[in-house]
Amino acid sequence: MKSSNVVWHSATVTRARREEQNAHRGVILWFTGLSGAGKSTLAHAVEEELHQLGCHTFVLDGDNVRHGLCADLGFSADDRTENIRRVGEAAKLFIEAGVIVLTAFISPFRSDRTRVRSLVPHGDFLEIYCRCPIEVCEERDVKGLYKRARAGEVKEFTGISSPYEEPETPELTVDTDRLNLAQSVDAVVAMLQERGIIGAIAN
Amino acid sequence: MKSSNVVWHSATVTRARREEQNAHRGVILWFTGLSGAGKSTLAHAVEEELHQLGCHTFVLDGDNVRHGLCADLGFSADDRTENIRRVGEAAKLFIEAGVIVLTAFISPFRSDRTRVRSLVPHGDFLEIYCRCPIEVCEERDVKGLYKRARAGEVKEFTGISSPYEEPETPELTVDTDRLNLAQSVDAVVAMLQERGIIGAIAN
Repeated sequence: MKSSNVVWHSATVTRARREEQNAHRGVILWFTGLSGAGKSTLAHAVEEELHQLGCHTFVLDGDNVRHGLCADLGFSADDRTENIRRVGEAAKLFIEAGVIVLTAFISPFRSDRTRVRSLVPHGDFLEIYCRCPIEVCEERDVKGLYKRARAGEVKEFTGISSPYEEPETPELTVDTDRLNLAQSVDAVVAMLQERGIIGAIAN
Repeated sequence: MKSSNVVWHSATVTRARREEQNAHRGVILWFTGLSGAGKSTLAHAVEEELHQLGCHTFVLDGDNVRHGLCADLGFSADDRTENIRRVGEAAKLFIEAGVIVLTAFISPFRSDRTRVRSLVPHGDFLEIYCRCPIEVCEERDVKGLYKRARAGEVKEFTGISSPYEEPETPELTVDTDRLNLAQSVDAVVAMLQERGIIGAIAN
């Protein structure tokens, strides 16, 4: 923490007022899992459902932050950690803005996810484990990355040459090899309703 | 740009749909000017007004990003440039989210501001120059920084030991030593109406 000489300005438009305006709470839905487990697909499908319910949403994923906010970072262990840190900080800004922010990153390291969780108040970070056997992910191989990893062309590939540390107590586990997309979306939305995140919505 | 292997996922919830939901456009209001010129005060006052008009807003300023997204950065020339780059990228995400994002940074270098402007489509970056003679800023010295800078305790202080490059063609100039806060807010809101950013609001 290098910053000194900076203090929080009192803003009159608070998170609470934005949440009242939106008629739902801000929250981080943190999707984690192997490449090919369906994180991004599920996040976007949940977003579609939430938008139709009148919610204010945004998806952060490797595809929109890797070309922008984190364009200076590579895929070394340090850079991956910094990538997740920045995503966590950006997500924190979005929940301050009253938005339901959905993040879709492999985020294989428990310590990185725990660090993001610790940034925000209890209950504002909901970890959703997209669980899928690596054999199934590799079979799908949507981006052709497993093939390249097996050929040694991609270093430190999660699940092959780098570990994936499963969540110990995620708020939700979605078995994406057993549930179809609609069922998976329903599970996430049901959790949001049970937790009162979107309970107040009058659609 | 180190990132490869990443492609944009097609998301069904687009900026256009969010803007329709919000009944206003997303835009960056980039406040620039000397320390003490009133950037943060004006940004928060504009936000209050816009929120009351039903708009979805968020303020990024040194105080909420320096402790988070940019907590690893100091105040060297390189770090300041990287700070503004990240703020620009974060602001770009917010306009994608359909939000009116107000940024309040000294952002003294024209090249840094131009770089942010180039990140987004034409018309989505509105530069607002909070113009105020340095003598007036120094007289105010809200944070006591000018006194410390004159004493040599703060290095590379904009306006004293580091240049401030005035905007050449800002979308709006607000003379904060001549206008009061309400008048300044009115000038910004009028610009947003003239440009159709908030024209569609039925309050």
